Amino acid sequence: MIVVMKTSATKEEVAALMSRVEEVGCKVHPIIGEERTVIGVIGDGTTIDRHQVGRMKGVEQVVPISKPYKSASREYHPEDSVLNINGVMVGGHDLAIMAGPCSVEGRTHMIEIAHACKEAGAKILRGGAYKPRTSPYSFQGLGEEGLRYLAEAREETGMPIVTEVMDPSLVPLVADYADILQIGARNMQNYALLNAVGKSGKAALLKRGMSGTIKEWLLAAEYIMSHGNHNVMLCERGIRTFSQETRNTFDLNAIPVAKQLSHLPVIADPSHATGKWEYVGAVAKGAVAAGADGLIIEVHDEPDQAWSDGRQSLKPERFAKLVTQMRAIAQAVGRDIPEAHMNEAIADLAPA
Amino acid sequence: MIVVMKTSATKEEVAALMSRVEEVGCKVHPIIGEERTVIGVIGDGTTIDRHQVGRMKGVEQVVPISKPYKSASREYHPEDSVLNINGVMVGGHDLAIMAGPCSVEGRTHMIEIAHACKEAGAKILRGGAYKPRTSPYSFQGLGEEGLRYLAEAREETGMPIVTEVMDPSLVPLVADYADILQIGARNMQNYALLNAVGKSGKAALLKRGMSGTIKEWLLAAEYIMSHGNHNVMLCERGIRTFSQETRNTFDLNAIPVAKQLSHLPVIADPSHATGKWEYVGAVAKGAVAAGADGLIIEVHDEPDQAWSDGRQSLKPERFAKLVTQMRAIAQAVGRDIPEAHMNEAIADLAPA
Amino acid sequence: MIVVMKTSATKEEVAALMSRVEEVGCKVHPIIGEERTVIGVIGDGTTIDRHQVGRMKGVEQVVPISKPYKSASREYHPEDSVLNINGVMVGGHDLAIMAGPCSVEGRTHMIEIAHACKEAGAKILRGGAYKPRTSPYSFQGLGEEGLRYLAEAREETGMPIVTEVMDPSLVPLVADYADILQIGARNMQNYALLNAVGKSGKAALLKRGMSGTIKEWLLAAEYIMSHGNHNVMLCERGIRTFSQETRNTFDLNAIPVAKQLSHLPVIADPSHATGKWEYVGAVAKGAVAAGADGLIIEVHDEPDQAWSDGRQSLKPERFAKLVTQMRAIAQAVGRDIPEAHMNEAIADLAPA
Amino acid sequence: MIVVMKTSATKEEVAALMSRVEEVGCKVHPIIGEERTVIGVIGDGTTIDRHQVGRMKGVEQVVPISKPYKSASREYHPEDSVLNINGVMVGGHDLAIMAGPCSVEGRTHMIEIAHACKEAGAKILRGGAYKPRTSPYSFQGLGEEGLRYLAEAREETGMPIVTEVMDPSLVPLVADYADILQIGARNMQNYALLNAVGKSGKAALLKRGMSGTIKEWLLAAEYIMSHGNHNVMLCERGIRTFSQETRNTFDLNAIPVAKQLSHLPVIADPSHATGKWEYVGAVAKGAVAAGADGLIIEVHDEPDQAWSDGRQSLKPERFAKLVTQMRAIAQAVGRDIPEAHMNEAIADLAPA
Repeated sequence: MIVVMKTSATKEEVAALMSRVEEVGCKVHPIIGEERTVIGVIGDGTTIDRHQVGRMKGVEQVVPISKPYKSASREYHPEDSVLNINGVMVGGHDLAIMAGPCSVEGRTHMIEIAHACKEAGAKILRGGAYKPRTSPYSFQGLGEEGLRYLAEAREETGMPIVTEVMDPSLVPLVADYADILQIGARNMQNYALLNAVGKSGKAALLKRGMSGTIKEWLLAAEYIMSHGNHNVMLCERGIRTFSQETRNTFDLNAIPVAKQLSHLPVIADPSHATGKWEYVGAVAKGAVAAGADGLIIEVHDEPDQAWSDGRQSLKPERFAKLVTQMRAIAQAVGRDIPEAHMNEAIADLAPA
Repeated sequence: MIVVMKTSATKEEVAALMSRVEEVGCKVHPIIGEERTVIGVIGDGTTIDRHQVGRMKGVEQVVPISKPYKSASREYHPEDSVLNINGVMVGGHDLAIMAGPCSVEGRTHMIEIAHACKEAGAKILRGGAYKPRTSPYSFQGLGEEGLRYLAEAREETGMPIVTEVMDPSLVPLVADYADILQIGARNMQNYALLNAVGKSGKAALLKRGMSGTIKEWLLAAEYIMSHGNHNVMLCERGIRTFSQETRNTFDLNAIPVAKQLSHLPVIADPSHATGKWEYVGAVAKGAVAAGADGLIIEVHDEPDQAWSDGRQSLKPERFAKLVTQMRAIAQAVGRDIPEAHMNEAIADLAPA
Repeated sequence: MIVVMKTSATKEEVAALMSRVEEVGCKVHPIIGEERTVIGVIGDGTTIDRHQVGRMKGVEQVVPISKPYKSASREYHPEDSVLNINGVMVGGHDLAIMAGPCSVEGRTHMIEIAHACKEAGAKILRGGAYKPRTSPYSFQGLGEEGLRYLAEAREETGMPIVTEVMDPSLVPLVADYADILQIGARNMQNYALLNAVGKSGKAALLKRGMSGTIKEWLLAAEYIMSHGNHNVMLCERGIRTFSQETRNTFDLNAIPVAKQLSHLPVIADPSHATGKWEYVGAVAKGAVAAGADGLIIEVHDEPDQAWSDGRQSLKPERFAKLVTQMRAIAQAVGRDIPEAHMNEAIADLAPA
Repeated sequence: MIVVMKTSATKEEVAALMSRVEEVGCKVHPIIGEERTVIGVIGDGTTIDRHQVGRMKGVEQVVPISKPYKSASREYHPEDSVLNINGVMVGGHDLAIMAGPCSVEGRTHMIEIAHACKEAGAKILRGGAYKPRTSPYSFQGLGEEGLRYLAEAREETGMPIVTEVMDPSLVPLVADYADILQIGARNMQNYALLNAVGKSGKAALLKRGMSGTIKEWLLAAEYIMSHGNHNVMLCERGIRTFSQETRNTFDLNAIPVAKQLSHLPVIADPSHATGKWEYVGAVAKGAVAAGADGLIIEVHDEPDQAWSDGRQSLKPERFAKLVTQMRAIAQAVGRDIPEAHMNEAIADLAPA
């Protein structure tokens, strides 16, 4: 770190700071300027807290140099991470399309939408069994019943499932059913939950908090990874700004920034980012062009009747059309979204 | 709710909407305008979801009329709530001053600061045993050991204690020690935690989320209250904005707004709102003048050495001076901050 | 507009409101609900101010129904506007690429960069002669000298020029040289400037303000258009949010939203939106995929030596590569970015 | 400035940077760390641009040390500035109360409100003759006619007047009438206007932009002051955030921060900061307690009929009561709001 002393700092204050820093095993490099002294501190990884230093007499500003996240950092892991979710690769050449209804609403319904999503080109199935709702009086999800329907839909279609978990004590239960545990935007800094998901060893889809900085987001990933669970996907789902025309503001910049700072796959959620189905396509396409490694999109056959988030859900036919458009863009940027059933079709040809 | 149809809406779309709304038992009142039709819907409390309506064909906009929170609403409870925290009243004529270190750092230290805070005029003791830290590698708190020290400090000083709980599974343990369970800003919409605190029956200090609207804040309170636990205090601790000169932006408007919409006491946290001790006094005084029912302030005898948040902690003597200044302002707005009990008690024994 | 009365509103208050509204020639449609009365007001275009109504006794809320912008609105002009800027079409099938240095730095330099930009595929040349600088002590631009160099570069390359004007009194001068007058983000609501540009009849590139809502942006366009000048392009250049990793936050949602609400072309400025050259490409590509009608990109041959904004400037060769990538994406979404020299090649064939 | 090199920076890149910096007359102090090199640059006031340095090869980050504003800075002018506005002191012991209608609406009306404001304790009269309106179709102010009415009201009451100017070309005209030129939030970075106001020599009330940082605000003041016009007041009027319950978010922190960084008086505008009259009192009182040097408050005798901003205007009797409450708070923090002028009392004694 770099410690900038005040112009008014006394020699004693400078000396006190330097001896304090040396006490904890760091090296100091003072620069005596015309107006003020600036002190470089080397070897400050974990032994010294910059806020403590910032409080010392005569200090004007402390500038951190090293990044506080390690496992999530591209500096420590230069290659892109590619996750294998039951055979679906996330973070590699092909984009991973995740789709499904906001809430699991019933067995038959879930299976039907799953088929529709798969035919349209989705590779991973989403659906909420436990719903974070702003009001305690809103529908809170079907719970374990919903998880069972998701699991049946997986059996029917072969698609891995991603579903949200909100309560650390439910992580083992949800992990029994799900292939990917989703951590919602409201819980990005719910450390008990991050720790529980980290310990579960399950892949995690970590949504960025409504007002989470990219650094905080990577540190939240670091919480999960600090338990040895490196199967983490980041998900940009829009941030909260002054803008009121859409539910959230999709932060397109976050895609290249997160991919520069981290090796983890970045998924875009255009449904929550816009809150209105008519804007989902434009944002989804933009995310693909900007380098997203996948998308998670809400699809419902009768959005008017959806139990939640119908306003932002695409009908299956519109979703299918969007996948085709996204595929063309993916190919234009040197990647791809494979056609539906490709592997299965090949599998069918192979001897059992 | 009010449903505004598009200028292009057909008669059939208007009719479909009206019959849908009547199906669920609401009454409709159409207004046929020159450009468009607007439909008033009456009796829409819980039977109909406005987002579903918003998805119907021909609908441009749906405007909700009723407030979604009930227990927390002043409409349903016109009088100010006054909470009794082991004899300390919060929300009444006298302001409640809560103070103490960010983290519990040790037994002796905790007791000493508790005495200093009490002498300065604090009535409730704060201290963190479980710390929400952005980085998994930062100090995470002393845990139950910290709770024990807090309890000892309470025994020594008679001050009720407020401390944060982050994990729903720890609510029973923390509730065994604490008088007030603090829900941190990062957890304002951690519904598993809100439900656990609601069920505990313990008083709660609910911090506003970094990007929480006032409506979301009151709905978070509603989660706790929906379990019959009405001992909720709201705490404004600064919101996240573009402004970078301070750690957060203290939203002074939130005080009169929250007090108009809700009967719950509103506490101000100038320490987190500013992040720098030199601004804490100005913001604390402003909050008192604007109608806050109490303050929670970080106090540390050696801020340079504090394990966390030293940058925003006041030294006891500075805190004592601030309490005196706040008292003068409280009196100027028709309220008060009573003197410390200790001296009063001693004064009573002394000959006149 | 819709006027929602308070639950506590008296009959007299309702009657007073209704007679006030009728006085100014509007029709009223009251809905007497169980809890409260709601009054529809028809024919409220210009005769009545909703804020005035909102101040009347017993009124809780006033909900506007009609949009306040007309000329800029797609409702009034359903087809996309296509602007003809000296032969370069903006808003039609082909995307318009604008490029050049942040500041005009000299005659030779300007002409050289102009050629490089043109060869890479740019159709319009940008360059700042009057620079809005946060500090009065920073370089403020070459002024009219810079305009002359821009004009020379146009003569040499045939590219129309876009340049910023900040002072209403300089609009005639700048309009003498420029093909497009740029209104910067800081001046989105500088009404004297908007009026002057409107009166000039010159095409305008209207940047969105740092905290401008889309409605305010369209109303700013309306200021220009209210003078009969309909040659307006909107430019999304990033908004100010809590996010600090990039200079601004590119609001991708704004592209589909602005294009839905308005018929005006929408240009994206990835240079200011990110502030760092390494993110410019990803955001530029995302904007193309999301439906932008053009881009404005800062290009400099020696970014390290640029007089301003070097941090976000692309080198010509990198820009050329980006144009190729954007062309592939444009084609993937059914549009195009024509190759450089196309018109010139044709011009070469024509008799001199 | 401090230049942090990348971990991957080569010796050549470090050497190139150092020689470049030395070329322009600065001294360099390299610190060779274990992971990377950090270079202190001394004497960097005006000769070197940090963004240029940031663009050099191998550079990761540049940290500025010196503040970019000088005249506005407390470092260069440690004592509070006290402005003398025709005998009313702003920035000293007594708080300056400015009040009046949003718009000047007529001669008689203006004079009557002026008297009412004066009797309530206001010392300076506000009123808009040129109104910045989001829509080109809204009332734009009475123009010079309005200025004349303001001047008459000054003659009648002896109160200096503050009024907004938006167009640089109108600065001489407005300065002929006004005692203080108000620069609105939308124009905080309208540099042509700032320069014109600076040259006029008139006192200026500089409102903070909706998304203006405190540094940008002080640099805007610096624009005015760079012309030798040091009669500048800063005005916090609320910033734009995600919060929608009020028109803007009053940034209370800005008061102590601006007063720490600058010697200029800080005025609070609770009317625009809240947008609703019922919250104006709480915020006004909070601002006084936090150290504001004055307030500017919208007052109207018939807010329901006001031509603009009626929703946030106080009636004179409510304003008078608020002044009394603010006086008590001012006294509690060691300052004062003097009673209405003595000369009125004297005038009353004089024969009619």
